[in-house]
Amino acid sequence: MTSRTPWQLAQRAHRMNPSIIREILKVTEQPGIISLAGGLPSPDSFPIDAMREATARVLRDSPREALQYASSEGLPALREWVAAMLRGHGQQVDAAQVLITTGSQQGLDLVGKVLVDPGSRVAVESPTYLGALQAFAPYEPVFTAVDCDDDGPLPDALHAAEGARFLYLLPNFQNPSGRCMSEARRAAVVARAQALNLPLVEDNPYGDLWFDAPPPPPLAARWPDGTVYLGSFSKVLAPGLRLGYVVAPAPLVPKLLQAKQAADLHTPGFNQRVVHEVIRDGFLDTHVPTIRARYKAQRDAMRAALEAHMPAGCHWTVPTGGMFFWVELPAGVDAIALLPKAVAKGVAFVPGSAFFAEHARANTMRLSFVTVSSEQIERGIRALAETLKEAA
Amino acid sequence: MTSRTPWQLAQRAHRMNPSIIREILKVTEQPGIISLAGGLPSPDSFPIDAMREATARVLRDSPREALQYASSEGLPALREWVAAMLRGHGQQVDAAQVLITTGSQQGLDLVGKVLVDPGSRVAVESPTYLGALQAFAPYEPVFTAVDCDDDGPLPDALHAAEGARFLYLLPNFQNPSGRCMSEARRAAVVARAQALNLPLVEDNPYGDLWFDAPPPPPLAARWPDGTVYLGSFSKVLAPGLRLGYVVAPAPLVPKLLQAKQAADLHTPGFNQRVVHEVIRDGFLDTHVPTIRARYKAQRDAMRAALEAHMPAGCHWTVPTGGMFFWVELPAGVDAIALLPKAVAKGVAFVPGSAFFAEHARANTMRLSFVTVSSEQIERGIRALAETLKEAA
Repeated sequence: MTSRTPWQLAQRAHRMNPSIIREILKVTEQPGIISLAGGLPSPDSFPIDAMREATARVLRDSPREALQYASSEGLPALREWVAAMLRGHGQQVDAAQVLITTGSQQGLDLVGKVLVDPGSRVAVESPTYLGALQAFAPYEPVFTAVDCDDDGPLPDALHAAEGARFLYLLPNFQNPSGRCMSEARRAAVVARAQALNLPLVEDNPYGDLWFDAPPPPPLAARWPDGTVYLGSFSKVLAPGLRLGYVVAPAPLVPKLLQAKQAADLHTPGFNQRVVHEVIRDGFLDTHVPTIRARYKAQRDAMRAALEAHMPAGCHWTVPTGGMFFWVELPAGVDAIALLPKAVAKGVAFVPGSAFFAEHARANTMRLSFVTVSSEQIERGIRALAETLKEAA
Repeated sequence: MTSRTPWQLAQRAHRMNPSIIREILKVTEQPGIISLAGGLPSPDSFPIDAMREATARVLRDSPREALQYASSEGLPALREWVAAMLRGHGQQVDAAQVLITTGSQQGLDLVGKVLVDPGSRVAVESPTYLGALQAFAPYEPVFTAVDCDDDGPLPDALHAAEGARFLYLLPNFQNPSGRCMSEARRAAVVARAQALNLPLVEDNPYGDLWFDAPPPPPLAARWPDGTVYLGSFSKVLAPGLRLGYVVAPAPLVPKLLQAKQAADLHTPGFNQRVVHEVIRDGFLDTHVPTIRARYKAQRDAMRAALEAHMPAGCHWTVPTGGMFFWVELPAGVDAIALLPKAVAKGVAFVPGSAFFAEHARANTMRLSFVTVSSEQIERGIRALAETLKEAA
């Protein structure tokens, strides 16, 4: 490139940053490293035989339709399936409100595109999902972090979000904290949000991954007109298909649809047909319990290892579903500084500070228990504990 | 929804509009209508057997990798394939400059996201691809239309684009005009753009669909540092897979990659592996000529039908590749007003005015010759000509 570059970046491009997690994942892909960093589902849980049969059926019965351009809204049968499934969980949903997206990450991008102006406020939990911060940031909001406890956002803290375009929440087994909002907290948060006229964007990638009992009904069931709901097939089937969905109050659907058309015309029709073929006859009813059992055993392994090895002064709450432990280290310990030392001992994690929109707490870390085996979890936590003790 | 809606739309949402073409397509999906409106590849050209074999191989040899999260840049082997293919067409491309996108529509969205500020200028051909206008519009540019003749943008007209963030062009068998820029025009346009320090965004979905001779080398080959190049597998394999790519000057790659991460994390890895499996051993070398032969015969059928039936005062240039005829009707004829009358006679087209960023010409229409058979083309053009004669 000559010194006189013809390219001028948009202002918003300065709000885009490399994903810290993806940079860490690159480092930890070295052989021999036990990675507790990634949020990757266990590939042992992927329904490979069902995928084989479904792709063969789609390419036998409807190959031309599967390979042709398709509607931006998504495959009608899949939209119907999503609506019926959500109604089974207590939501009032019509298929016309369901848009199929290229992973639920795209749902976050579309929400940002349609609702966020430069300088407008977006409220998030503290901590919150990093991918949502990355999806919203290019639309140049000012983020407001809402104070949380182990049960989610504090109702009295919601006033800080008044006037925001929306409050983004992950009520079920949150990434990164693992916490699940109780029924009472859901009721209180929705009531306060309604009183403040503060709409909600509810993200639910992990809700099906409960270990003992399903989580309470979604926030969207309490306030359907004030909630955009996002779901995903990544955690219950496979992320490499990139299939998610947005359920929006009817008045928002046309604009989200136009944003979707502009973004990628439509989500691959082939993938939509294959997934519908896999799930249409109740496959998930038998498949998801196998994932729950697998992840519960690995959660138990991590819990046991943490209890056995971690030094005094470390705190965690045992997650009742999902994929993550959130660990609070003794005050003064900087998890970012700890990471290279841990990698030298063969274990990786994600420093927690990446997950805060403001007031980052450096002495936190996220540990995933789903990608590696129970035996690796035990070895990894032991190495992590050693690192901590040596750094103390 | 209560009267006190909690939702406030972003300013940019007012720049999003329903796709006129998609609305027309819905109307023309009635049985019995011969649609010359759609830009859909012929499903007879889809390589269904090759897809069957490739999906079976991917799900046999690398199912866990295909179904897992993958890198935002795209599958390394597919990026290498794209780079090597483009080098074969005279471009200087390294695989590190190639990002795999969810259709080339996503490439347009990412380009807009990274390069367009509200109020900044974006220059386009006149007419231009409607999907590009829709992708860029949410980033709130002011569009400048560059005057064109049958050979593409007029070099002397480029001064109107000076100061624009980029000039968007479709040099090969343009949608909607069907025109292909000559080698001399390419040289003149690139020279003028370099002199003006006006970067180029070159979109090439149709370049492989030539009928007699391949088009001249891409603009990107003349000015690699000043050109972002977009390509697609939609027209040579199948659009339902949603696979495209962006090739960017090295300094732009990191921001485009971050925008891609935020937009959908990555393009479905399953689709990338299947397509790479289909094309890796030269499949397109034998497959694409069959598409060319098919579309050339249908182009000939439309040419013959237009010559046989259309009334005096209509003009068109015979396209030497691609999917479209662009027809200029007698002055004073409004193609939008004509459409319902044509549909009543059983034929549909796209009124040309949708394709103009400014100074729309109402007496134009786009006719696709690739989706329906030669026999239907003959009947459709006859019905269209009758409609025109009755409306005169």
